[in-house]
Amino acid sequence: MKNTIELLDTSLRDGSQGEGITFSVRDKLAVVKALDALGVTWIEAGNPGSNPKDAEFFRLAAEIKLEHARLCAFGSTRKKGVRPEDDKQVQSLLDANTEAVTIFGKSSYLHVTQVLMVEPAENLAMIEDTVAFFKQHGRFVIYDAEHFFDGFAENADYALSTLQTALAAGADRIVLCDTNGGAFPDAIERGVKAALSVVSDTSTASAAVVSDTSATPTPAAVVPDTSVMSTPKVVESDTPAVIIGIHAHNDSDLAIANSLAAVKAGCRHIQGTLLGFGERCGNTALGALIPSLELKLGLHCLPSGKLEHISTTCRQIAEIANVSMPDNMPYVGSRAFAHKAGMHADGILKLRSSFEHIDPTLVGNDRRFLMSEIGGRSAIAERARKLDPSLTKEHPVVSALAVRLKTLEAEGWQFEGADGSFELLVRRELGRYQPLFKIIAYRVVTEHPNGEAIACSHAWVKVWVDGQDDIAAAEGPGPVNALDGALRRALKRFYPELEQVRLTDYKVRVIDGRDATAARVRVLIESSDGQHTWSTVGVSADIIDASRAALVDSIEYKLIGDIERRFKAYL
Amino acid sequence: MKNTIELLDTSLRDGSQGEGITFSVRDKLAVVKALDALGVTWIEAGNPGSNPKDAEFFRLAAEIKLEHARLCAFGSTRKKGVRPEDDKQVQSLLDANTEAVTIFGKSSYLHVTQVLMVEPAENLAMIEDTVAFFKQHGRFVIYDAEHFFDGFAENADYALSTLQTALAAGADRIVLCDTNGGAFPDAIERGVKAALSVVSDTSTASAAVVSDTSATPTPAAVVPDTSVMSTPKVVESDTPAVIIGIHAHNDSDLAIANSLAAVKAGCRHIQGTLLGFGERCGNTALGALIPSLELKLGLHCLPSGKLEHISTTCRQIAEIANVSMPDNMPYVGSRAFAHKAGMHADGILKLRSSFEHIDPTLVGNDRRFLMSEIGGRSAIAERARKLDPSLTKEHPVVSALAVRLKTLEAEGWQFEGADGSFELLVRRELGRYQPLFKIIAYRVVTEHPNGEAIACSHAWVKVWVDGQDDIAAAEGPGPVNALDGALRRALKRFYPELEQVRLTDYKVRVIDGRDATAARVRVLIESSDGQHTWSTVGVSADIIDASRAALVDSIEYKLIGDIERRFKAYL
Repeated sequence: MKNTIELLDTSLRDGSQGEGITFSVRDKLAVVKALDALGVTWIEAGNPGSNPKDAEFFRLAAEIKLEHARLCAFGSTRKKGVRPEDDKQVQSLLDANTEAVTIFGKSSYLHVTQVLMVEPAENLAMIEDTVAFFKQHGRFVIYDAEHFFDGFAENADYALSTLQTALAAGADRIVLCDTNGGAFPDAIERGVKAALSVVSDTSTASAAVVSDTSATPTPAAVVPDTSVMSTPKVVESDTPAVIIGIHAHNDSDLAIANSLAAVKAGCRHIQGTLLGFGERCGNTALGALIPSLELKLGLHCLPSGKLEHISTTCRQIAEIANVSMPDNMPYVGSRAFAHKAGMHADGILKLRSSFEHIDPTLVGNDRRFLMSEIGGRSAIAERARKLDPSLTKEHPVVSALAVRLKTLEAEGWQFEGADGSFELLVRRELGRYQPLFKIIAYRVVTEHPNGEAIACSHAWVKVWVDGQDDIAAAEGPGPVNALDGALRRALKRFYPELEQVRLTDYKVRVIDGRDATAARVRVLIESSDGQHTWSTVGVSADIIDASRAALVDSIEYKLIGDIERRFKAYL
Repeated sequence: MKNTIELLDTSLRDGSQGEGITFSVRDKLAVVKALDALGVTWIEAGNPGSNPKDAEFFRLAAEIKLEHARLCAFGSTRKKGVRPEDDKQVQSLLDANTEAVTIFGKSSYLHVTQVLMVEPAENLAMIEDTVAFFKQHGRFVIYDAEHFFDGFAENADYALSTLQTALAAGADRIVLCDTNGGAFPDAIERGVKAALSVVSDTSTASAAVVSDTSATPTPAAVVPDTSVMSTPKVVESDTPAVIIGIHAHNDSDLAIANSLAAVKAGCRHIQGTLLGFGERCGNTALGALIPSLELKLGLHCLPSGKLEHISTTCRQIAEIANVSMPDNMPYVGSRAFAHKAGMHADGILKLRSSFEHIDPTLVGNDRRFLMSEIGGRSAIAERARKLDPSLTKEHPVVSALAVRLKTLEAEGWQFEGADGSFELLVRRELGRYQPLFKIIAYRVVTEHPNGEAIACSHAWVKVWVDGQDDIAAAEGPGPVNALDGALRRALKRFYPELEQVRLTDYKVRVIDGRDATAARVRVLIESSDGQHTWSTVGVSADIIDASRAALVDSIEYKLIGDIERRFKAYL
């Protein structure tokens, strides 16, 4: 297990403290599923004590069956002068009912005395009581030593005594935090080494440190050798292990370097967020770190075979958070293997490694030659095989699709999160498509103030179906809602099965915000008929028309699926 | 001079090889001026041999009077079997007529034999001849050892012999390149140390290395002690010095860490691009590195007093390149000192250093407290004090604002990215607000197909201003664009200064996609009048009306600011 690294993703907690990052409860559940599928060890999913939305999330999350990951709830040590059982915040962590809790406590003497404003000894008691309380309640306790490296530089003895206290109280992980993100790799290395020596000392002297609180915990048997670790799934009470972890921030652009320095010094637990979301400049971007750990240092972070899904998972999480993937993100960004200089493209064709530090397929990414059309065909073939298993990378339909996708992507389309629209695109190339309806014309009006007889937005849509036409109107709180209503009404007579379909998600992304209100927008719609869920996309400088395109794809996808299922014998 | 670092910015050369980065000749001249004002040592401004636009640029650049910086033209060693004086590319470098040339040559045996496909000895001759040629023509020669670290790992002797050759031929700088960006800091350290030992050896043995080319250069007196360096302005022929440099790429998110490791090992010349532009994941982002070098390592990179201009210069260059500044860029990004968590905001107010690794004013950046459900009253008070310095955390207006923000946030409003709207909110609570105009009514229509006489979307808006009203119409590619146009036209008669205002960014976020097309949307608008930039927000189930709200705030913010500035005496 010496070569295993335990990952904790805190996109849903520290990540949501980043500017512009807000997750709904539903978004959070989707992120949990994506991270679980990738195979991270721990998902720090929220702070129920500071955010009521998170309490609701944990209730719903308990019902998700996770394959690889385990959930943690995040909170702080008890308040001063209050017993853990009487502290509302501590109670909310218990109520989250997760396998693990992450408890942060203060390691910096300066913070204890000047920010928290408690006696240094009381801070130690707060750490001890809180950790012991959660151990008594059967939780796996990850102890985050906030401001550890700054504290270590100011007052090393006190900083280390906080770790000792948490260890003696039974903490399962001791995570050293560079909370302000200002430390350099050499300081990280020194801090980790000092912490490891404390782990080693405490393992022999822990009985002396545990004080006489009423809730005396059973001190964990502390294993000083960090090479011995157990993955969370097999953590058992008779094989406890204390692993030292690192939690870095990117304020000096060193979060990844600091995490690597910590691993070199002996850390085997790394906290971060897949895309680097987080306070200020963000947390360690695990998506850019994991490939280095696995491919360059030969460490195991993800279950076997998962690394090649990392680029896709990063894109999924960006979609859920409704932010753009950083194009230049190492390993997983769209530009990570994009070659612009002709000499580089030429070099690559002679010798793959000439301008690439790794093979992009190892992380599920693609090489792109800018302004050329080589690229991505394997991925296209892979996806198109769902419709026609005979399609290979060399098939002319796949080549045609590659060209078509390049054009559409240049216009702002993206099919990453739009399986339904992608399938329709493949059908068109395969000749397995004919329109089931057409919108002949539509008009959408928004007006304020609106007469009492009508909602703020109203629309009419005229459709053509197999030689017949019909027109219908609808109103709604917004123009897209009115358009959607009118379109469904107009089609109802021809396709009554559309009654079952409802839209379950609607997202809008401005493609180039710099063109302001004249910018193109991409609309993503998720639909469901109760049995299946599918996503479609539309792009236009006109948000109404982009929505129209995504709605039309959604309806066609549903109708075609039904026809193929119901009339199989005739097709 | 031991504590001085020489910077070479290659935004205009390597930077322009990044996807999405294109500079016109005019843009390039503007970037040169901005970098010169900041005080970088060298500006690598183009590759005249590969880009005819660059040749024109160098003609025009010769006329700019630079205060701090010196220009370099970038190119490669001569072609195989051709004398430098007969090589067109070499000639174009000479024609650029810059004080310095950067010459890149191959250091990797693998590249020499498999990509360049020349004999290893011929590669050495190409390096030697080219460097010697430019020295003969009085150029300061910066020699870039391409793929040095990969080459050093594969065949150290050959890699070092290429450095030896360049040194003996008179190169003034030897720059070690991690061209593929895949090296780790420890490999960088090893490579730099090996290179430094070559500098030391070559200084005594250089005569033996210089071969019998017809153009025998005068071997430079090589100074092995890297602590001795001269700034370019005072480089004189009788005090030559060879400094080792580093050129890192960010493919493992380690460009900054690698540059720091190189400095630790003895490099005193760093190449990068201010914002990190460059091939694939980009080059070393000097904007994020310089503050670490100056503030944390006590090294001198920029002329005294210039560091506090670095945030502004970064924004200028982003503007010229027409890309968004990376918000989360360390030190200089808009989020670098943005605090969202209430506990962080509270901590900062007690102790500046509690959640900031440096004082933001040192790099000309600002602390920001984000308004959000996570933030608290301290943060609200801090922001509100811009309008009224007497506001404290306990002030009733701040309490009222906190309550108001909670309600608005529950409805989907967010003010963390909307300074303008937040200020209007504070004004309303303070009673320092009266409406400058009202929209009496508006109508926005989107229709397809559209008659040829009209765009897909058209709108009319009727406004009231101080007892008078006016109505105006506009059309556009989308409904929001049409509404924006109509509103501005209607107000133009009353507020001609709105002519200066343009929208610079437009963002849409669906607040809870579960309600699909009936979901509320949040629109964020960024506006600029050329001097100031401000952001406003609008929320509604109707995207048109959400945009209307953000547009109205944007216009009011501008008008109020102008009034307070122009009519100060009467207020």
